[in-house]
Amino acid sequence: MILVKLGGSVITDKSQYHAVRLDVLRRLCEEMTGAEDIVVVHGAGSFGHIMAHEHALAGGHRDGSQIPAYAAVSRDVRELNLMVLDAMIEAGMSPVSLPPSAGITLKDGVLEDYDTGLLQSYLDMGMVPVIFGDVALDSVQGFAICSGDQAMERLAKELSPRRSIFVSDVDGIMDRDPAEQGAELIGAITPDDLDSMTFHARVKDVTGGIRRKVESMLAMCSPGMDCIIINGNVPGLLADAIAGKEVRGTRVKVD
Amino acid sequence: MILVKLGGSVITDKSQYHAVRLDVLRRLCEEMTGAEDIVVVHGAGSFGHIMAHEHALAGGHRDGSQIPAYAAVSRDVRELNLMVLDAMIEAGMSPVSLPPSAGITLKDGVLEDYDTGLLQSYLDMGMVPVIFGDVALDSVQGFAICSGDQAMERLAKELSPRRSIFVSDVDGIMDRDPAEQGAELIGAITPDDLDSMTFHARVKDVTGGIRRKVESMLAMCSPGMDCIIINGNVPGLLADAIAGKEVRGTRVKVD
Repeated sequence: MILVKLGGSVITDKSQYHAVRLDVLRRLCEEMTGAEDIVVVHGAGSFGHIMAHEHALAGGHRDGSQIPAYAAVSRDVRELNLMVLDAMIEAGMSPVSLPPSAGITLKDGVLEDYDTGLLQSYLDMGMVPVIFGDVALDSVQGFAICSGDQAMERLAKELSPRRSIFVSDVDGIMDRDPAEQGAELIGAITPDDLDSMTFHARVKDVTGGIRRKVESMLAMCSPGMDCIIINGNVPGLLADAIAGKEVRGTRVKVD
Repeated sequence: MILVKLGGSVITDKSQYHAVRLDVLRRLCEEMTGAEDIVVVHGAGSFGHIMAHEHALAGGHRDGSQIPAYAAVSRDVRELNLMVLDAMIEAGMSPVSLPPSAGITLKDGVLEDYDTGLLQSYLDMGMVPVIFGDVALDSVQGFAICSGDQAMERLAKELSPRRSIFVSDVDGIMDRDPAEQGAELIGAITPDDLDSMTFHARVKDVTGGIRRKVESMLAMCSPGMDCIIINGNVPGLLADAIAGKEVRGTRVKVD
């Protein structure tokens, strides 16, 4: 089984509200066509983060004014999800959407139980389950954010994929802010590297930014599992990564 | 708690593929605004029935050609659902969508278990859970149709609403085909009336047509529960029915 995360930063323009990068999204879906036994997770990007941040939804339910915001965010991420479904169907895939707000409960912001029975049934039937960054209920704080990365982490544990691919808008994890001159790609990261690294948040991201992403990738890796972050703006990389070829990117490894 | 079913025949044009009746949908949402403790179920109408019928999805999984159809139908009903969410948000409601294909399993075409815990949590938080006619997994036949009426029936049993309102495109149940001259509204129906009645299917409806709807309404009624079918094309009827006023329609009663 292969897990693919289409990052919100690559399929949307995170600096603008409701801006999908349709050409990139369509190409990435075409690159996934033909892959068997695949689960797709996509970020919420500009469809979720901006409003979720404004109304502090990640911190839980504090007042009634957040309720319309919860409704709006869950609606907005469904709009993006519909575009992803469309791009997948156009590319010849058979997706089925499983929104976290309709099936997952968190505990203090952390995904605890995740019943993957339904998802597995869809996989067995030859379909492509699609999960996405969404708001979701929380047994302690009322509600929270279920990021695409959190869903990836849990799915990696539950489904033991042979390969997990994070499709981002950078070549991988860089040794400094990618906007800085001389930034270089780190080919591989282990848990020991994490503390010596610096991370930068250039845009609003209610899910914790790059550091959280690397931590999440490390948490989901297990020995022998192929876990890689690649640049979705480079045509062909995703198809190659799915096929198991060596590609430019950052491999995350645990011993 | 009040259960409202927005029939596929009133919010879409069932004779045309993908035709929403946006003006009616928006007005009906405005009529629901302000109602507390409300759950909305909507039909799939022309977004679900036509393709589900063509590929015999209701009969279960027979061959691989149905898989892209399952994906397409679940995608199409989500497009309609997004329009319903938009109309509800515009009217000032805070909806959250709970798609059957992402959370319910049927057994031989019949909805068996329905965990309403998530739905109840959303209600308690002041949101409006929205369920809709959808494809769904089936433990015996692979997949099946979970009609809006099936969802209504089960929700009525699980949630014991004080009122269940079916918003249709006719005044109620007529004593003959509504297209025939002299058709008269039946003010009330009991289980004993069912066998003496004739039913007509004027348009394709994979969920079983009017007879199934009446049976479903009878099955979900319990003594003292207000269960009524009204015409959604008549402005004000839904608002009055929600407020508990006497309205033109057919009341379904059990002793």
